[in-house]
Amino acid sequence: MRFRHILRADQFDRHTLDRLYALTNRIRKKRGTRDGALWLRAQFPHRRAILYFLQSSSRTWGSFVAAAQNLGMDTLDIRDPRVSSEVKGEASLDSIRTFSSYADVIIMRVNDKGLAAKAAEHMDSAGRPIPIINGGSGPDEHPTQACLDDYTLRRSFKERGGIDGKTIALVGDLKRGRTVRSLARFMQHYTGVKLLLVSPPPFAMEKDVLDFLQEHEIRYAVTDNFDQAVAEADAVYMTRIQDEHDTRGESAGVDFSKFCFTERHLKILKPHSIVMHPLPRREELSVSCDKDPRVMIWRQERNGMHVRTALLLRVLREQEMEKRWGGPLPKHIQDQLWLLDSA
Amino acid sequence: MRFRHILRADQFDRHTLDRLYALTNRIRKKRGTRDGALWLRAQFPHRRAILYFLQSSSRTWGSFVAAAQNLGMDTLDIRDPRVSSEVKGEASLDSIRTFSSYADVIIMRVNDKGLAAKAAEHMDSAGRPIPIINGGSGPDEHPTQACLDDYTLRRSFKERGGIDGKTIALVGDLKRGRTVRSLARFMQHYTGVKLLLVSPPPFAMEKDVLDFLQEHEIRYAVTDNFDQAVAEADAVYMTRIQDEHDTRGESAGVDFSKFCFTERHLKILKPHSIVMHPLPRREELSVSCDKDPRVMIWRQERNGMHVRTALLLRVLREQEMEKRWGGPLPKHIQDQLWLLDSA
Amino acid sequence: MRFRHILRADQFDRHTLDRLYALTNRIRKKRGTRDGALWLRAQFPHRRAILYFLQSSSRTWGSFVAAAQNLGMDTLDIRDPRVSSEVKGEASLDSIRTFSSYADVIIMRVNDKGLAAKAAEHMDSAGRPIPIINGGSGPDEHPTQACLDDYTLRRSFKERGGIDGKTIALVGDLKRGRTVRSLARFMQHYTGVKLLLVSPPPFAMEKDVLDFLQEHEIRYAVTDNFDQAVAEADAVYMTRIQDEHDTRGESAGVDFSKFCFTERHLKILKPHSIVMHPLPRREELSVSCDKDPRVMIWRQERNGMHVRTALLLRVLREQEMEKRWGGPLPKHIQDQLWLLDSA
Repeated sequence: MRFRHILRADQFDRHTLDRLYALTNRIRKKRGTRDGALWLRAQFPHRRAILYFLQSSSRTWGSFVAAAQNLGMDTLDIRDPRVSSEVKGEASLDSIRTFSSYADVIIMRVNDKGLAAKAAEHMDSAGRPIPIINGGSGPDEHPTQACLDDYTLRRSFKERGGIDGKTIALVGDLKRGRTVRSLARFMQHYTGVKLLLVSPPPFAMEKDVLDFLQEHEIRYAVTDNFDQAVAEADAVYMTRIQDEHDTRGESAGVDFSKFCFTERHLKILKPHSIVMHPLPRREELSVSCDKDPRVMIWRQERNGMHVRTALLLRVLREQEMEKRWGGPLPKHIQDQLWLLDSA
Repeated sequence: MRFRHILRADQFDRHTLDRLYALTNRIRKKRGTRDGALWLRAQFPHRRAILYFLQSSSRTWGSFVAAAQNLGMDTLDIRDPRVSSEVKGEASLDSIRTFSSYADVIIMRVNDKGLAAKAAEHMDSAGRPIPIINGGSGPDEHPTQACLDDYTLRRSFKERGGIDGKTIALVGDLKRGRTVRSLARFMQHYTGVKLLLVSPPPFAMEKDVLDFLQEHEIRYAVTDNFDQAVAEADAVYMTRIQDEHDTRGESAGVDFSKFCFTERHLKILKPHSIVMHPLPRREELSVSCDKDPRVMIWRQERNGMHVRTALLLRVLREQEMEKRWGGPLPKHIQDQLWLLDSA
Repeated sequence: MRFRHILRADQFDRHTLDRLYALTNRIRKKRGTRDGALWLRAQFPHRRAILYFLQSSSRTWGSFVAAAQNLGMDTLDIRDPRVSSEVKGEASLDSIRTFSSYADVIIMRVNDKGLAAKAAEHMDSAGRPIPIINGGSGPDEHPTQACLDDYTLRRSFKERGGIDGKTIALVGDLKRGRTVRSLARFMQHYTGVKLLLVSPPPFAMEKDVLDFLQEHEIRYAVTDNFDQAVAEADAVYMTRIQDEHDTRGESAGVDFSKFCFTERHLKILKPHSIVMHPLPRREELSVSCDKDPRVMIWRQERNGMHVRTALLLRVLREQEMEKRWGGPLPKHIQDQLWLLDSA
């Protein structure tokens, strides 16, 4: 698989994820020392990233800017809401093409479903091959979030045999939550995982994901018994109600209080289990739980920056090597690009 | 001529343009390699540019930020619309003076006609000589756009004897389009150029420009026969209708469909002729034409970044040398500053 | 005293201020040469500052960004008003905690009184010790402004025995002006200072500050005779009416014309006296006075950048040294950190 663009979570297979996380581990350690940080900054000081973020998201935006800076890159933000009102549909491809004139990679977050994929095609057909990294495209895809969640699970279970065989509770608005939908599918890369799908019935996981789980023989159970799920799970993945997607005030009529993780649940949670949340949160994960070392939400944030640094590094290397090589790289060369010290 | 500020298109004479474009060529090539890019970045890492952009323009803004980053400069954006609402008229000079305290050069884009020139006077009379670069001041001036258009013409006609003797069609809203008005005047620097001024009659080129053309013996013809103009021209410069300047909905009553460049025109266009557009575009230049190598619009964008990099480099060098020399430089020293490797 | 966070003006004692300004002087001179500027930039290229500026302030924001860039740091701006509307009260601590995942220091400016102090506690109780620098928190504190004003006074009186024994007129809206309230208190660090408190009666200095002055034996007189104050003062500190704090249009009924510094006052002002203003200004300090060398307003701005560079450098050094040392540093080591060339 070429690593030209990062568009969809299903681009990643087990082999790729293994290499991505190995690179992420090395980058994370490197960042811990001044010399290491400077070494990383010397990787791409001659490259520039455009952050085309027409959809508000300070968190994801900040994480990607930090990732680009970690590699020494310059960044250029296109976040002006006036741009967003100007450009609609096809016109935004023109706008992206324009900004690509100044840059080497485009990281984009837009409401427009499928626009990232279209932009990637557009770039491929143009003379200058500019990678597109999807930082969230409407309701459909947010592949780097899936990677950072998966990486956080792996790191947390490192001394306990990895993700294989673990029980993971996905909690909250499973119907409309992009992160839980992606994470559920990601479990195809492991064996013996059990998913507990915990939500109020009106916000249950949708059929397309359940079909996917069956097809890939990922075991799951649907429940609204939150306490029991917390007691059983190796990881509890909390999400907030996505009421910004309400069309007729659906959320107002539903009692979510039963699906909130509070200090009481810390006592139910097993000693080695963990709690995750993609943030921002509301009352579904009590702030008073933060000090418990099993609550991984800040580590999750930092993992996001490290995973994105690794992905950017990898994509820019492939771009540079393809240019030098004059076309798609042989597989064994591609594999080399996952090693931190590869030239 | 000192190169302290860049305020108006008529600051540039033929001699200066020749040197500017020679520098731009060298910078463009330098940017093509990692070592070259790093060499450029080492030019002004100790300098900071303020981008005072109260008028919305992501394109020009991005181009200038990239230019500053290419030279290793830090940048500081003043784009907050709240600033813009606070400061009116004279007060904005105070605001610019304040920001100049943190910076070595100010690149500004404002609606206020003449404000860039006033800011330059203000800086000159202050103790710290800070260059002002006009990135577009209301309807009157946008000198770097004129340079990038002119540079694009030169590069395109490099193997065909340059701009001298060429026929250039300016198409669209010639009455209110800042770029075509400037580009028409720039033709004074060449010999034997013929201009075809193609527009709906209500948006014809204004008398001041026509008088200028006559005075400088630049031949022109006014026409609304777009097809014929495309067939004759060596360069077709398309522009969009500037309906943001409508005061009574003038644009609505005019049929522009006759002035749109479509795939059909690619067949009429001569094999070595080119198509330009300052962007953003609407229907006046069909997206389906983009793949034709004669359509120069993306190269035009990149040229803009390179020309602005050259101008910034030149202006900062003069600033630095004047400081060292203790006053305006002798002409032969000034000429040296256009060479890429000058100290 | 540890220098972990910069939250309040009363954190600074005379000893600390002496060291801070000595460091500021050295940084200011260092910035004057290319080699010096590059040396400074090499101090923290591996560190990143978050600028969490939910309250509009381009001036203070620009000054801090420039300070961070002076030390080679990357910066990440959180200024999106959409963030500001999302996060209220406690939720903003979560937001700050999130952004701290990507950064090494947080510089914040918010309307929320006390939020900077709360954020500092929050960080201290978390695993990763991230310094908080208060860039203005509602009506209560703006410690770096107090330092830059004080530094400007010191520099101006350097050849005249320093601030001790000087007469300083504070003029304008003393009731609601944060800068004058802080500066008045700062006079506790000097001996023999006399304050002239010049304002319309409805905007007189509040009792808490007057009590503080008495308690610390700082002499003061309340007057509305502006001309006489200008004639007597060694420094005239002008401020504008803070009508943004009006609750019932209080400002409209008051005649401020008597408290405006005009060219006429330049003749009354003593030859070695100075005029200051925290900016932005309105009519209370006439633009036509700017050219008089006794008007220090632009130098004040630049001093602000230098003082903030010094504070950032100091805070980051303590952070780094505490990490290496494994806890709070011995006092003699802390003192070393104020020297420019300390490791």
